[in-house]
Amino acid sequence: MSLLTEIYEQPQRLEELITHQYQQIKQVAEVIKQKKIQMVLLAARGTSDNAGRYANYLLGNRNHLPVALAVPSLYTNYQTPPELHNAMVIGISQSGQSPDIVSVLQNGREQNCLSIAITNQPDSPLANAADFVLDLQAGPEHAVAATKTYTAELILLALLSTALNEDKQSRQEIDQVPNWVAQVLKLNDYIADAAKRYRYMQQCVVLGRGYNYSTAFEWALKLKELTYVSAEAYSSADFMHGPIAIIAGGFPVMAVVPRGKVFPTMLETITLLKDQLKAEMVVISNAKEVLHLAEIPIAIPEQVPEWLSPIPSIVAGQLFTYHLTRIKGNDPENPRTIVKVTETH
Amino acid sequence: MSLLTEIYEQPQRLEELITHQYQQIKQVAEVIKQKKIQMVLLAARGTSDNAGRYANYLLGNRNHLPVALAVPSLYTNYQTPPELHNAMVIGISQSGQSPDIVSVLQNGREQNCLSIAITNQPDSPLANAADFVLDLQAGPEHAVAATKTYTAELILLALLSTALNEDKQSRQEIDQVPNWVAQVLKLNDYIADAAKRYRYMQQCVVLGRGYNYSTAFEWALKLKELTYVSAEAYSSADFMHGPIAIIAGGFPVMAVVPRGKVFPTMLETITLLKDQLKAEMVVISNAKEVLHLAEIPIAIPEQVPEWLSPIPSIVAGQLFTYHLTRIKGNDPENPRTIVKVTETH
Repeated sequence: MSLLTEIYEQPQRLEELITHQYQQIKQVAEVIKQKKIQMVLLAARGTSDNAGRYANYLLGNRNHLPVALAVPSLYTNYQTPPELHNAMVIGISQSGQSPDIVSVLQNGREQNCLSIAITNQPDSPLANAADFVLDLQAGPEHAVAATKTYTAELILLALLSTALNEDKQSRQEIDQVPNWVAQVLKLNDYIADAAKRYRYMQQCVVLGRGYNYSTAFEWALKLKELTYVSAEAYSSADFMHGPIAIIAGGFPVMAVVPRGKVFPTMLETITLLKDQLKAEMVVISNAKEVLHLAEIPIAIPEQVPEWLSPIPSIVAGQLFTYHLTRIKGNDPENPRTIVKVTETH
Repeated sequence: MSLLTEIYEQPQRLEELITHQYQQIKQVAEVIKQKKIQMVLLAARGTSDNAGRYANYLLGNRNHLPVALAVPSLYTNYQTPPELHNAMVIGISQSGQSPDIVSVLQNGREQNCLSIAITNQPDSPLANAADFVLDLQAGPEHAVAATKTYTAELILLALLSTALNEDKQSRQEIDQVPNWVAQVLKLNDYIADAAKRYRYMQQCVVLGRGYNYSTAFEWALKLKELTYVSAEAYSSADFMHGPIAIIAGGFPVMAVVPRGKVFPTMLETITLLKDQLKAEMVVISNAKEVLHLAEIPIAIPEQVPEWLSPIPSIVAGQLFTYHLTRIKGNDPENPRTIVKVTETH
């Protein structure tokens, strides 16, 4: 029963993290400001790579920092790492083990870049390669599919962004996240029932844009890992540039569409999918005008601001995926083929 | 008949481009060197975004430049573009029309960054927003699915990388690309016959790594646009971190695995897929030891170096996709839903 337990642990874990880690994060933020960092290089894989996608928007939108997602094979297979100037390197990994991610951080240090590890294992190779370690404090994660370490990664990044801006209102918004997640968990029975409809779904697309580009990828990854559905994630803009051709009547589309700056463009895409292409939709949102277009509307709390919406939104996606896994007769604790720690070079 | 005609035009178009554009590219390279560029920000969508993926490895591996793929919504929807220092901004677009890509280039210029447009329309809004325009010279592209403009984008990027390094051997290798593409086109009848087997394929994954990460994404995009197959692309390393769970016996895997630095790790993945997971594979490669693992081996010329292999490889993927489209009874000239020029904000 690890997976569901770990999904349900999230409000408490997030609360503890916010309480205990902000002081250290403020110190790290001070160092970042002193060093006049001009770009961020992020290295991660799997679930943590989706936290990297969140950071890309978060640090870009709120801190005006350009973010590059590192290409680990340039360090390992090609052995030609890029030359970095005034850069900060962030490695994100639950286990802190994957050699290719560690090598990006090690090289950053050799180039005198500030290096930060975000990990649940503060004694891991990744942590040892970093100037600063931000501990996810999520407790042991037994389920193969990561859930609580993902939301812990997001909240640490949100705290870091807020500390960099010394932004009090954002800090107060973060305090409400555990409560919003707890509210989403109350949808468990509704989601368990709604997921039955997708018993024989074999493929779907998952759409999100802006901050929730990350949520689309993470929800799609959970679906692949646990339900074995070929779930492909897109930004709604990239989707319009070609992939939309795969949609015919009844094609299942999962969408993450909370209110915010990208809401109008997402609403346009969802309306097109519904009215013209007759797609079937599962929508996570706090906006009635898009929820009513969905076959299965999943309502997150009204007051969630866009920049923090990926956290309650993915918890809804986790519940949907967990129940669909059981409905399909798969074992959520032992997905086929994959293991908890994957080491790639 | 535009699509097949445009696929077949490629050797000649590439030859003309190499002959006519290198002088101008050398001048642009001089400016880049004078400006002591420290990072590259790349903006593109759809097929051109896959050329951006190629640039990410090319400029990283051969020119030690860190590359960030731009997040257009930070410019349009969020209106909080990142602050750039010593950066060069490259916009890639066949039509040069999409407002979100144009806005990344315009903002780069406002921040005094060097800006370069790579486009088939030298009088487009993208071209007008750039300091330098690299003309794809591909002639009118009528087919909705881009083919010849994609390989033109790749060869321009390869020429730019070579000019930056003033590397004579690489320059000579580029001269052979049109001939390698012509050799791949001779496989047309073989590929047309082989594709029949996939008449009822509804989903597949497409794998590539390193330089051919781009090829995996571009092949998958063509499959989606034309055959409506849910084709999802991965680097073989990302694939191991979760998505591999979707693979059961007989699941179709397309893979691009030419010789080179990532060949050993790709071979390991392909062997696992074949021996343990009993996947069915279509493999594009110049290495016998991986071709013999494939149900459908597609051999590109032996002597193609890894860094240029995405060009002949994607031509094989284009032919496969074209024939599968016809075999499935779809119209390759008029794919459903999509149009030639997509404008996103």
